[in-house]
Amino acid sequence: MSAPPDSLSSRYAAVRAQTESLAGPLSAEDCALQSMPDASPVKWHLAHTTWFFETFVLESHAAHHEPFDRSYRHLYNSYYNAVGEQFPRAQRGLISRPSLEDIRRYRSCIDARMAALLDGGRLPEAALALVELGLNHEQQHQELVLTDVKHLLSLNPLAPAYREAPLDTAPAPGACGWTAFTGGLREIGASGAAFAFDNEMPRHPQYIAPFAIADRPVTNGEYLCFVEDGGYRRPSLWLSDGWVAVNTHGWEAPLYWRKIDGAWHEYTLHGLQPLDPARPAVHVSQFEADAYARWAGARLPTEFEWEVAAGTASGDGHFSGSGELHPRASGRDPLAAMLGGVWEWTQSAYAPYPGYRAAEGAVGEYNGKFMCNQHVLRGGSCATPAAHIRPTYRNFFPPAARWQFSGFRLAQ
Amino acid sequence: MSAPPDSLSSRYAAVRAQTESLAGPLSAEDCALQSMPDASPVKWHLAHTTWFFETFVLESHAAHHEPFDRSYRHLYNSYYNAVGEQFPRAQRGLISRPSLEDIRRYRSCIDARMAALLDGGRLPEAALALVELGLNHEQQHQELVLTDVKHLLSLNPLAPAYREAPLDTAPAPGACGWTAFTGGLREIGASGAAFAFDNEMPRHPQYIAPFAIADRPVTNGEYLCFVEDGGYRRPSLWLSDGWVAVNTHGWEAPLYWRKIDGAWHEYTLHGLQPLDPARPAVHVSQFEADAYARWAGARLPTEFEWEVAAGTASGDGHFSGSGELHPRASGRDPLAAMLGGVWEWTQSAYAPYPGYRAAEGAVGEYNGKFMCNQHVLRGGSCATPAAHIRPTYRNFFPPAARWQFSGFRLAQ
Amino acid sequence: MSAPPDSLSSRYAAVRAQTESLAGPLSAEDCALQSMPDASPVKWHLAHTTWFFETFVLESHAAHHEPFDRSYRHLYNSYYNAVGEQFPRAQRGLISRPSLEDIRRYRSCIDARMAALLDGGRLPEAALALVELGLNHEQQHQELVLTDVKHLLSLNPLAPAYREAPLDTAPAPGACGWTAFTGGLREIGASGAAFAFDNEMPRHPQYIAPFAIADRPVTNGEYLCFVEDGGYRRPSLWLSDGWVAVNTHGWEAPLYWRKIDGAWHEYTLHGLQPLDPARPAVHVSQFEADAYARWAGARLPTEFEWEVAAGTASGDGHFSGSGELHPRASGRDPLAAMLGGVWEWTQSAYAPYPGYRAAEGAVGEYNGKFMCNQHVLRGGSCATPAAHIRPTYRNFFPPAARWQFSGFRLAQ
Amino acid sequence: MSAPPDSLSSRYAAVRAQTESLAGPLSAEDCALQSMPDASPVKWHLAHTTWFFETFVLESHAAHHEPFDRSYRHLYNSYYNAVGEQFPRAQRGLISRPSLEDIRRYRSCIDARMAALLDGGRLPEAALALVELGLNHEQQHQELVLTDVKHLLSLNPLAPAYREAPLDTAPAPGACGWTAFTGGLREIGASGAAFAFDNEMPRHPQYIAPFAIADRPVTNGEYLCFVEDGGYRRPSLWLSDGWVAVNTHGWEAPLYWRKIDGAWHEYTLHGLQPLDPARPAVHVSQFEADAYARWAGARLPTEFEWEVAAGTASGDGHFSGSGELHPRASGRDPLAAMLGGVWEWTQSAYAPYPGYRAAEGAVGEYNGKFMCNQHVLRGGSCATPAAHIRPTYRNFFPPAARWQFSGFRLAQ
Repeated sequence: MSAPPDSLSSRYAAVRAQTESLAGPLSAEDCALQSMPDASPVKWHLAHTTWFFETFVLESHAAHHEPFDRSYRHLYNSYYNAVGEQFPRAQRGLISRPSLEDIRRYRSCIDARMAALLDGGRLPEAALALVELGLNHEQQHQELVLTDVKHLLSLNPLAPAYREAPLDTAPAPGACGWTAFTGGLREIGASGAAFAFDNEMPRHPQYIAPFAIADRPVTNGEYLCFVEDGGYRRPSLWLSDGWVAVNTHGWEAPLYWRKIDGAWHEYTLHGLQPLDPARPAVHVSQFEADAYARWAGARLPTEFEWEVAAGTASGDGHFSGSGELHPRASGRDPLAAMLGGVWEWTQSAYAPYPGYRAAEGAVGEYNGKFMCNQHVLRGGSCATPAAHIRPTYRNFFPPAARWQFSGFRLAQ
Repeated sequence: MSAPPDSLSSRYAAVRAQTESLAGPLSAEDCALQSMPDASPVKWHLAHTTWFFETFVLESHAAHHEPFDRSYRHLYNSYYNAVGEQFPRAQRGLISRPSLEDIRRYRSCIDARMAALLDGGRLPEAALALVELGLNHEQQHQELVLTDVKHLLSLNPLAPAYREAPLDTAPAPGACGWTAFTGGLREIGASGAAFAFDNEMPRHPQYIAPFAIADRPVTNGEYLCFVEDGGYRRPSLWLSDGWVAVNTHGWEAPLYWRKIDGAWHEYTLHGLQPLDPARPAVHVSQFEADAYARWAGARLPTEFEWEVAAGTASGDGHFSGSGELHPRASGRDPLAAMLGGVWEWTQSAYAPYPGYRAAEGAVGEYNGKFMCNQHVLRGGSCATPAAHIRPTYRNFFPPAARWQFSGFRLAQ
Repeated sequence: MSAPPDSLSSRYAAVRAQTESLAGPLSAEDCALQSMPDASPVKWHLAHTTWFFETFVLESHAAHHEPFDRSYRHLYNSYYNAVGEQFPRAQRGLISRPSLEDIRRYRSCIDARMAALLDGGRLPEAALALVELGLNHEQQHQELVLTDVKHLLSLNPLAPAYREAPLDTAPAPGACGWTAFTGGLREIGASGAAFAFDNEMPRHPQYIAPFAIADRPVTNGEYLCFVEDGGYRRPSLWLSDGWVAVNTHGWEAPLYWRKIDGAWHEYTLHGLQPLDPARPAVHVSQFEADAYARWAGARLPTEFEWEVAAGTASGDGHFSGSGELHPRASGRDPLAAMLGGVWEWTQSAYAPYPGYRAAEGAVGEYNGKFMCNQHVLRGGSCATPAAHIRPTYRNFFPPAARWQFSGFRLAQ
Repeated sequence: MSAPPDSLSSRYAAVRAQTESLAGPLSAEDCALQSMPDASPVKWHLAHTTWFFETFVLESHAAHHEPFDRSYRHLYNSYYNAVGEQFPRAQRGLISRPSLEDIRRYRSCIDARMAALLDGGRLPEAALALVELGLNHEQQHQELVLTDVKHLLSLNPLAPAYREAPLDTAPAPGACGWTAFTGGLREIGASGAAFAFDNEMPRHPQYIAPFAIADRPVTNGEYLCFVEDGGYRRPSLWLSDGWVAVNTHGWEAPLYWRKIDGAWHEYTLHGLQPLDPARPAVHVSQFEADAYARWAGARLPTEFEWEVAAGTASGDGHFSGSGELHPRASGRDPLAAMLGGVWEWTQSAYAPYPGYRAAEGAVGEYNGKFMCNQHVLRGGSCATPAAHIRPTYRNFFPPAARWQFSGFRLAQ
């Protein structure tokens, strides 16, 4: 947070450009639609991330700031009660105007003002911290742009591809090994030396019993065995709420799997593909991950076990910069690349660390108020920017959520 | 239906061009969104009306017809079970592709093939009848384009105008007079000499008791008295289902009325306007019309009374070609212009005329299968093409529907 | 309405005793439960019919009337807004106290006061009319006691019988004949000479086209052919709303039909029985009746056709006094016994007769406010008291309702 | 679990008699109704607890066991998929038969067989463990009998009392003190020496940071300050899901608080009472407890902190045997009586202890499958049998649940 302003300015420009690059292949129509209340239109993501800088940085720290458009304060507020009422989330897809062009102008305008502010120097620490937060916030929305447009396009009977490039093929990983860890008191969480979200702090001791963790996530091939063994029809494998979800939603396989003429396929951002047994299973809920683990005689790791293991992992991860927007088959090294590929469900409910305090003011609503009925995912995915992730990073979703790039690995 | 093909060809071109003209002021984003399950995206209307000609005319009557795109047969089928499964109505707003440009190409292609077919001559009567039906169908969708986009834009907190031109002002009509009719056996329905929908036939006798009908629809000013007299809070004025609707939806005024800083306004296709007491009340449900009538010590006319009265009315109506897309204040003549302005709710449930038979085949689903829990509206509106309407025309909607240009006049 | 008070007094006693007799076979538990919002607990029926006499007769006409229990005014008001707020209909089954014994005491107390009032003589005409209305009201609830407890017991996996006596067997009727009627102006409705509900009046002319009507209702055997011919899987046979109902509720047969080990059975008030092909089909919605008629190449009669035909019918009907609470097989005479057996769906929407006016005051809510989205049934059933029915009687339910003893006959 | 059979036999008789004693003041009607899907009819509790012994003990361990009634296996199965399909939970209140008398006969019959089995001696350890589990299970349902009938009676506008005896009055506790604890590794959970549920095991180390805990639960008087300070209208005090719950359900105070003519009252099992500010706040959700804690500048304890503190508490608790079925005002000693009074919400999500394994077979569904989206409550209440509770006991409910005797104390 004490990085020199010129470096922050260039990072600001790079992150903002990256967001626009992700929207590049999409038409105004693609960007306007909302496929479900959990997802948002791409246009909304483009506007809301800009609103974040305008509301939290420019309003307080730019001299003589005039709103770009007074109606945006309400229209693009996601969930900050301290800023005021929010336009209803489920109706974000009912707003054809402002147009995509209007929002591009909005971005340009705010970017120019932010550049002036950042290049003007002498910003207080609190302002720099908010810019840093805004960039990390924008990176989160970069991933949501991909998951939300994937969900939208998946509902289209034409199954259009977001990216036309074919998916690489890779050799299948071998049988999955296990890496064992001794138990004891371990320090968990971020130290605060570099940027981290408030929910990763404070760093604190946790007692962890001895455990072993799988060297890679569960693959499509392995998951298919679970499906074909009647996994979705055996209540004894499921948590009670999970079994309700299976029956309410009619789940029979991961979100984007489709059986066409007897053969399993998977809808991806690269279009509809034959199911590749070597790649990790993805777009499963925590309920499905948990049921698979029970079927396999194992369990999901806690987030603390995961973090301890990730501290020893090595190798390059697979992130959004790779151009391949679907998780690749794992390599054969033990615990290689725990970051990237797929977000990994843990068994841990999302809860405050001992001594956690949310920030003062509106940005205090960023993380803390969601610490109920959600579970922690770790590690980032093929849709995450590489610069955004770290071993202490805590992502969180309700246990029935499936539209993120969510997979899992086993523990014992 | 025996009009010479060349005349049909030019009418075909004119009706199709009119549809595109209505979509002219709208962006691709405006055309892609769906505001509620009852309404459809404009893009869908543009495609579905084209699908109608392709499916019902070209498939059967054009030599060597190749589908423009095989997926459209499913994607743009509205409710014809005989044609096959339909893409779910409530999800029409989730389809960003085909794009608006794709649909414009679709229209051009089908129009060229239709022109060739119509200009080629020698079409059987059945085919000509289907073209005629398709043109009337397209005119119905022209009105829906306006009502559906009005609903969409009304949800936008910016209250954008579809048409920027200001609304004309007109003198208020005087107190409402009544025109009396003697009772007796009267012939009701269309003779079949000119085009009419199957639900207007067969022409048949109805016994009608003596009645009187108001010379014009109820105005905003009159309706405001009902509102201010607590009309929406007095259960004794409402049908049982109507009272449920009032409380379920929180109705306090017609659909597009808004109280802003203590003053009533009305959202129109020309933008937000101060409520004009001289204009007809519009966008009310049949429940509201019925409650108003009870409050006023009157009742709604039956559709038969309305048709008898309309047979004696004179004067020019106000239709979509006028450029003014909001109903004008009525003139002062008795029963002037019962066609145009606002659709008028009747008390009649939508039911088959004695001896009614739906057409054979898929187009038999056009009207007949909706003859349950809907009520008849008569007369057309300011959003109806003038050439589309006639005194025997039966429009129908559920009694709680409000997004059409629906008003009412009283009877005794 | 001008019957001498002593006769009214004895009829009062007889009707009231009959209600209690119907509740006789039921335990306090049977009487307390509510199976769905449309149905009410038997205890509620016992209380509400008593409330009717207390509220509409004793409150106004008894000297020094003190309420039996002030809380009952609210607790047992069904839908009379003019009397005040109503206890929510869907929660009638959540009230364990007052107990069944309390309600029996309530009935005794009000009966004693009514007897004193009626025997005291000199009641004004208006009061006598309300007593008459109350007795007819109680007879309607006698039928509801049977239909509601039937629905409740049907949900019990033990399928208990309300009446243990076995069902009589009867010879199957022959093939169904038709009786033809000439068209013309006919007088419809009740003259007012004897008691009739306000919705049967005023008597008025209707023009009726020539028609033919079936000599008896459709039988189980005939309806089974429709089921086995895929009637519930062919959308072309159904009204649009009917097809939605089929799919929403998963209808595959009439409400109480059950296929057990490959053989059709029917749950009746006499317990579960093998389906008797000779008896009338019963517990069907209007949607099912209409789809059957379309399948059979016929249609449902209008309520006016039905009334004209019923004026010529002869023979004894099958009513609740028979001890057999399931419709019997029809005889072989043309148009024998159009009253009794099963209520018969007509195609007519429930609407006011020309010149209809609801009564003044709270009892004006009795019938008029339901004239929307309901359809007319005629003729009474095996659960109707014989003294309650007449050819002009108009019963009404929404087209999807199935828990009444509703069947149908065809017309052409 | 190795208690001699004769002692088990007498405990069996005592626990079973206690259940019937709780149902004593209730009529057959009171026992048949179900107020919401979460609650069950008292008759169902009487039957299900008996089913537990029949299904899990007699079926496996009694010689020549014949089912009392074959239909009960399905009818009274709560949620054991391994036993077979369950009668739908939300429909338990639709079963008027078997009658309460039938269920009393069922209990007598099974009790006689269980007595014979227990007195016959030589039962294997596994069978004795199941009897022990069944007795603890029955004690849990004893509390549910009280909470479920309280909910049912609370919906009755007559507000009937379950117990007529007046509530004792007690002096208000003074200001709340805090007791501090040093941090470190602490052993958590049950050792297995005495009976405990599987979810209390295995005993394992947890690292706990230093903390302080309030000496008593929050009182009505304190909670009223929160209410009057706008606690239910300030989103900044609530978790995101909690704020949704407040608005969805219209919460303005704890479940049974009612403002009557400007004065707060509380519905209790002893009838409607003026709100006693000295008694603990009860029938609050975890969302409300959490919001109050945030308002008070404190937090909820974790379940581990609570257990550590409870290990040091002293004094007699307030349990169901006291005859007073509403929580009493706390005494003035630090950490007196952490058991009894009100269940206390913790901030801990309900999760398996490290190394947790559910039992084999159907009883393995007892606890483990609910470890998702629930939170832990500790300590028991005034409706808990004294012999049933211990410091390691983990109760669990969703964070929005309010109908249990749930209160809370603060931590720092």
